[in-house]
Amino acid sequence: MDAAAREAQVQGSLEWRVTVPEGSPVTVEHEAGVAERAWAWVVRMLVAVRAAVAGFARKVWKIGADDPRRAVHSLKVGLALTLVSIVYYTRPVYDGVGGNAMWAVMTVVVVFEYTVGGCMYKGFNRAVATASAGLLALGVNWVADKSGDKLEPFILSGSLFLLAAAATFSRFIPTVKARFDYGVTIFILTFSLVAVSGYRVDQLLDLAQQRMSTIGIGIVICLAVCVVIWPVWAGHELHLLTVRNMEKLAGAVEGCVEDYFAAKPAAAKSEGYKCVLNSKASEDSQANLARWEPPHGRFGFRHPYAQYTKVGAAMRHCAYCVEALNSCVRAEVQAPEHVKRLLGDVCTRLASQCARVLREASTSVAAMTSPKTLDFAVADMNTAVHELQGDLRALPPVLALEPAAEMSLMDAMPLFTVASLLIEISARIEGVVDAVETLASLASFKQVEDDDDKKGQTEMKVHPLNVPDDHDASTHENQTTTKHPEQV
Amino acid sequence: MDAAAREAQVQGSLEWRVTVPEGSPVTVEHEAGVAERAWAWVVRMLVAVRAAVAGFARKVWKIGADDPRRAVHSLKVGLALTLVSIVYYTRPVYDGVGGNAMWAVMTVVVVFEYTVGGCMYKGFNRAVATASAGLLALGVNWVADKSGDKLEPFILSGSLFLLAAAATFSRFIPTVKARFDYGVTIFILTFSLVAVSGYRVDQLLDLAQQRMSTIGIGIVICLAVCVVIWPVWAGHELHLLTVRNMEKLAGAVEGCVEDYFAAKPAAAKSEGYKCVLNSKASEDSQANLARWEPPHGRFGFRHPYAQYTKVGAAMRHCAYCVEALNSCVRAEVQAPEHVKRLLGDVCTRLASQCARVLREASTSVAAMTSPKTLDFAVADMNTAVHELQGDLRALPPVLALEPAAEMSLMDAMPLFTVASLLIEISARIEGVVDAVETLASLASFKQVEDDDDKKGQTEMKVHPLNVPDDHDASTHENQTTTKHPEQV
Repeated sequence: MDAAAREAQVQGSLEWRVTVPEGSPVTVEHEAGVAERAWAWVVRMLVAVRAAVAGFARKVWKIGADDPRRAVHSLKVGLALTLVSIVYYTRPVYDGVGGNAMWAVMTVVVVFEYTVGGCMYKGFNRAVATASAGLLALGVNWVADKSGDKLEPFILSGSLFLLAAAATFSRFIPTVKARFDYGVTIFILTFSLVAVSGYRVDQLLDLAQQRMSTIGIGIVICLAVCVVIWPVWAGHELHLLTVRNMEKLAGAVEGCVEDYFAAKPAAAKSEGYKCVLNSKASEDSQANLARWEPPHGRFGFRHPYAQYTKVGAAMRHCAYCVEALNSCVRAEVQAPEHVKRLLGDVCTRLASQCARVLREASTSVAAMTSPKTLDFAVADMNTAVHELQGDLRALPPVLALEPAAEMSLMDAMPLFTVASLLIEISARIEGVVDAVETLASLASFKQVEDDDDKKGQTEMKVHPLNVPDDHDASTHENQTTTKHPEQV
Repeated sequence: MDAAAREAQVQGSLEWRVTVPEGSPVTVEHEAGVAERAWAWVVRMLVAVRAAVAGFARKVWKIGADDPRRAVHSLKVGLALTLVSIVYYTRPVYDGVGGNAMWAVMTVVVVFEYTVGGCMYKGFNRAVATASAGLLALGVNWVADKSGDKLEPFILSGSLFLLAAAATFSRFIPTVKARFDYGVTIFILTFSLVAVSGYRVDQLLDLAQQRMSTIGIGIVICLAVCVVIWPVWAGHELHLLTVRNMEKLAGAVEGCVEDYFAAKPAAAKSEGYKCVLNSKASEDSQANLARWEPPHGRFGFRHPYAQYTKVGAAMRHCAYCVEALNSCVRAEVQAPEHVKRLLGDVCTRLASQCARVLREASTSVAAMTSPKTLDFAVADMNTAVHELQGDLRALPPVLALEPAAEMSLMDAMPLFTVASLLIEISARIEGVVDAVETLASLASFKQVEDDDDKKGQTEMKVHPLNVPDDHDASTHENQTTTKHPEQV
């Protein structure tokens, strides 16, 4: 407050300085001016620094407030490190940084990851790579030892060169890259450390045993802290991301069409597809890490995490089309309002059916229940598609009644594009539904009982009122053979 | 060969075993059968293993043959490690694995990356983080030392906890994550090692000096090997990726439209957009690494690598639409051939103009020359857009002449969709052109001289024959104010 007030005052005096008339004896005020300016500069700097710090602090606070688990993760890392250091402080024989304590510390620093899957992946890779590279290096050292002083350095350096090159090359194999990248680093590291060490084999055996136990302690502390305190499961994150993206996609389809037929578009809801377009990388990495996680909650052993990425791919496939639809909605050239109105109702209905299918799929994935009512929703969606196709077919005669029929048809073209994109989107939503159904059967989502009163159930009961049974059945048949045979 | 022949024979005998009639005295042949079966099993295993090894070897060979730099990179890593180990073998005072040699080895293993940018990033991060964390830890150790034996462990553990938590949290700040992620790891690692070490401050000073020099040797060896032997520059890779993707996008636009109007589609060329859709992650990471690279070749100091990602984003924006176009091309329901033919020529012309714009842009980026002729190509593209719009406007009267006019219009709708997607694609290509022009000005691409006979020049001379000057100018004006004002 004080500083700000003083700054205001200083700025006032600066302003005054500007108004000094040209040619006036400024030099007289020179010394006072320098002191004042220096002070003003200091004050300005302080204010600027305070503003920058406050801005930065606000940004950092927002990062933590958006997802408090980030702050918890940071505290967990601090805790794990402190634990490991305490273990080594309180050990009767404490051997300093050169010894083994550092391996435990190092393990905690590099193995501790945000998700349990990441921790398991790194822990497993580190343990296995250290053990296997250590054993191999022992063998090579033994051979080098037996082959005389002259050959020894050549055998050691040669094997180091070959193994490092081969291991590095193996990283270009996609499977190795995805699952054992960190292990390869540790393999090369351990092998070179042992090969360069210059110790005798019996010394090495001692060292290896100590090192393995130290790394083991580090990994155990990491995993314990990671799993026990507010764990973040990569599998669960992937699950939530998929559900969230499906809802966003539903909102985007609905939002785009609403915006198109509304007087003035409000972009908020309809931009949701962008998240879907950009989440490939996080889906892939989460699915990769999730496979390392032990069963937890509703995620059993061998939960089909890979199928989530397929659901994600199907959603992206759909989102590409929503993107094209969105650009039609935001285009400068539009069909005239009276032409738009002809398809407004049916398009809005189709969009809300599309959104409903996506929302039911997302509810089913979220609750991990078998998507029973999904087929009905898809049937409804297909009915809406047929209605839209019918209305499209009826459009030319309607437009022909207008005075300037040709012009109207030309004007109606943006509307045709919107309609056919919408139909294409509904076809792609069926792809999402297929992927979700595969997921449901692979992950054996549980069946919703007929006699309980869950949400899915009430929707099922409401359903037959909307769509006659025979129609439903025929659409179902259509759906399995060809998708939207009359697709525009 | 021999094994295969034997296997065939064995399989014959196995078949014979299957044909033994039910209830026959199989036990009589028991002993001979076991030996034979065991042998067959061994042979089968050997053959299977050989096939698996051969298959794997072929896969690995392909990985190397696709990009020989991968094999070179592996050899480079081997070389750097061998160099570092030789440095330590030949040192007069050699202090074993517990000492400093391991820090040089460790540095090489973790710092050596595929691209020069990756190497610089990790080297810089490692050096700065080790130095700063070391200094900070020395300070904390000094304070702890002064505050008595009772407080010391609390100060050390407390500072470790706080710093580790703060540093971990800083990783969630996007800029830190992108540029200093590895540095944060090393910072925590160094700080904890020094804090846990239990050494006195004067011992630590010695240790710190040795460690810094060892890490320095490791980094120097890494960078030398990485830069001197067949270097892979992240910036150059990004540049090539952008150029390649632009050409693929050009091919895809052309290919899709050719496929649409051709009798039967051949998917090869038109699938190129998929690469564009999937290269966000590699573009981002390469742009991130490229900023660490020193000037090299035509890539000066502060080359605008970030602009390449913007060009990439513009191309992806375009590729979404090409994806929608491609699905129209592959759709089951198509406009009848005679209706298609009405727009065939003009659509093909527009597509080839679109492809030409993209190809000229890609040539300009590839050669790093100012895209002078690009404006003409864009003007031609816009002319083709106007032609297509004109033909579209003329279509309803033409179709109205047909016997079943209404049906024809309905049939023609897929064609309208293709046409409007094509127009949207050409608008998005202008976005790519804008991004390329910004890149050209930011990176100060060199001007092509008027009196040399480069490719760009000949195209420029050919140009005025195609498009009248006045038309050109008007289209240029349109282009800067609104894009495709008559866009369908």
